[in-house]
Amino acid sequence: MKKLIMLPGPTNVPEPVMRAMLEPMINHRSTSFSKLLKRIMEKGQKIFQTSGDIIGLTTSGTGGVEASVTNLVKKGDKVIVTVFGEFGTRLSEEIEDMGAHAIKITAPFGDAPSISAVEEAFQKNGKVKALYVVANETSTGVAVRWLKQAGDLCSKHGAFFVADAVSNFGGDDIPVDAYNIDVCVTASQKCIAAPPGLAILSVGKRAKQYMLDNPPPMQYLNLPRYFKYAERGETPFTPVLPLYWALDAAFDIMLEEGMEKRIQRHKICADAFYSAFKAAGLETFANPQNRSNTVVALEYPQGFNDKQFRGAVEDNYGVVLAGGFGEYSGKLFRVGSMGEVHRYHVMTTVAAVVNTMKQMGTHVNVEAGLSAAVSGLKSLS
Amino acid sequence: MKKLIMLPGPTNVPEPVMRAMLEPMINHRSTSFSKLLKRIMEKGQKIFQTSGDIIGLTTSGTGGVEASVTNLVKKGDKVIVTVFGEFGTRLSEEIEDMGAHAIKITAPFGDAPSISAVEEAFQKNGKVKALYVVANETSTGVAVRWLKQAGDLCSKHGAFFVADAVSNFGGDDIPVDAYNIDVCVTASQKCIAAPPGLAILSVGKRAKQYMLDNPPPMQYLNLPRYFKYAERGETPFTPVLPLYWALDAAFDIMLEEGMEKRIQRHKICADAFYSAFKAAGLETFANPQNRSNTVVALEYPQGFNDKQFRGAVEDNYGVVLAGGFGEYSGKLFRVGSMGEVHRYHVMTTVAAVVNTMKQMGTHVNVEAGLSAAVSGLKSLS
Repeated sequence: MKKLIMLPGPTNVPEPVMRAMLEPMINHRSTSFSKLLKRIMEKGQKIFQTSGDIIGLTTSGTGGVEASVTNLVKKGDKVIVTVFGEFGTRLSEEIEDMGAHAIKITAPFGDAPSISAVEEAFQKNGKVKALYVVANETSTGVAVRWLKQAGDLCSKHGAFFVADAVSNFGGDDIPVDAYNIDVCVTASQKCIAAPPGLAILSVGKRAKQYMLDNPPPMQYLNLPRYFKYAERGETPFTPVLPLYWALDAAFDIMLEEGMEKRIQRHKICADAFYSAFKAAGLETFANPQNRSNTVVALEYPQGFNDKQFRGAVEDNYGVVLAGGFGEYSGKLFRVGSMGEVHRYHVMTTVAAVVNTMKQMGTHVNVEAGLSAAVSGLKSLS
Repeated sequence: MKKLIMLPGPTNVPEPVMRAMLEPMINHRSTSFSKLLKRIMEKGQKIFQTSGDIIGLTTSGTGGVEASVTNLVKKGDKVIVTVFGEFGTRLSEEIEDMGAHAIKITAPFGDAPSISAVEEAFQKNGKVKALYVVANETSTGVAVRWLKQAGDLCSKHGAFFVADAVSNFGGDDIPVDAYNIDVCVTASQKCIAAPPGLAILSVGKRAKQYMLDNPPPMQYLNLPRYFKYAERGETPFTPVLPLYWALDAAFDIMLEEGMEKRIQRHKICADAFYSAFKAAGLETFANPQNRSNTVVALEYPQGFNDKQFRGAVEDNYGVVLAGGFGEYSGKLFRVGSMGEVHRYHVMTTVAAVVNTMKQMGTHVNVEAGLSAAVSGLKSLS
């Protein structure tokens, strides 16, 4: 059974992207690789809407996020960071690992902090080195909708602005330069719809210069090395070649669809999921005002059997769902509505979720859920 | 033209290993992935000849080597490290990045330090935390042949023994437990003959316990996290799934051939290369006593055009060779004799190298080179 991978990463990967990985091995210190790297840089700049550098790291998204910290944050720095889920917690730990002071702007899990809380932190704390924002909390299905204002605040206060957009870049509109984002981090296996194995960072001129002037005492996540090698079309360390070919193909698909249309599609599909689940009678974990367009998190009824439910959904419908993260394990499930998400994915997933819930004795309205999904998807081209 | 990738990584990858990357996406937090990880762990233990843990990191080999440092070496530690090429230099920098004191045992590039120099360093320096040895210097084509004695020395002095075997593990015999190696690092794209993107570490019980008791202040290269997640069949961060499938298939090929036969094959092919190039009149860069069985480095005649030579070898024979590293750029070239190296690879490469040299006006004896290769390969099954 071919399965629908409705996870918040890895996601469904289009065939041409998978096949791109079969490209024969090449010397990564050759013009063949330089050309590939140049193509990725140029396409990446269009997709990130930036004139900055696009850097690939052979790591997961977390490796990319950690690099955004280790290359900008120094001992004693004051750094504002949003914490409203697992990935914000991880970020704040990374900041503290550097010996910096993490000023945490928290929100209850399921909600997002407000921009006014961030503004207040800037006012209260004097010289702040950087603001780190989790643009989309994969663990709770919550997004922040004030990235532009945050960029303005950072410009005003002379702070670096870093966005962990691992799980929504390419699904939400994040025009990096227009939002004054100095470093924006994502990964191959989320909205870009390539296999996992590559983190992708955009680094603006100001952040790049700072990093070059203040190289961190480490090798693998040392971004200045990547900048220097990029000048001659190389990476400092052997790159994960199959993923570079895959990323090149995935970028083509993104540019062919067009970013505007792609982001619209993500919004329509997420809205269809939310309205379908609501109509069926299920509880969304996220505060509706801050719900994510790429990760739909839903609460289980009290005492519901997570393993049995997700097992049945996978076995009977071929739909793969994610469970809850950390303390939410067993208490919620998550639908990744990312990358290759179209009518078929939404309808099959809604049908699988609501019908399995019903069969497991939950009071859900299957017909209402399906009809709401159909309505929600009407505007999808 | 299908090319022969005679690089010191990436190398030629067998078709079944390439195709393994097309395995459909799965949830990396599921029993499907746990089973894959368990298979890799079990096969890896046979291949590394260890009862220790086998950890995959989504990084290049350098990421794996850096993890072996950041998880064992602390500020103020005394650490002995061999430096006889680019990768030893990198290792000593990684050790110093941790605030430790790197006691460098050097040798002129092209040669390897002696075990007696290491012994002397142990005697002179009191309490030494660890010995780091580059088992095979990819940049110079030099191997050390006293790993067993080094393990004995470390046992005697209560020091950890770490081998950077990135470019010869799977090509040279490195029985990890028998040699008392606490951490042995390699990467997917060398003698294992999988694509690049995965570092593989064996970590013995003593080193594992030390790491668990002294976790480093970092996330991505934090090995205790990998140990803990491995217990439930997971990785802490999203793994490069295509490479995990590829590694599983590559391990099968290694075990099917048998490690003894595989290592014998590497030795025969490397010896055939050395005798062919010597008979043709070319100069090996490495001191013959310490020459590598996986990376054959050859000096160019004075004023020889590296780019033109390697370009002609690739264009006319489809053979991809590596240039010199760092300060040796343009002064030598390197043949990776790794992984999928058989009669055909050696003969084609020798023919390509000596005939192109001849045509570029070098005094080489083409016939003698080819005949020596044929003789050298006689014992290959």
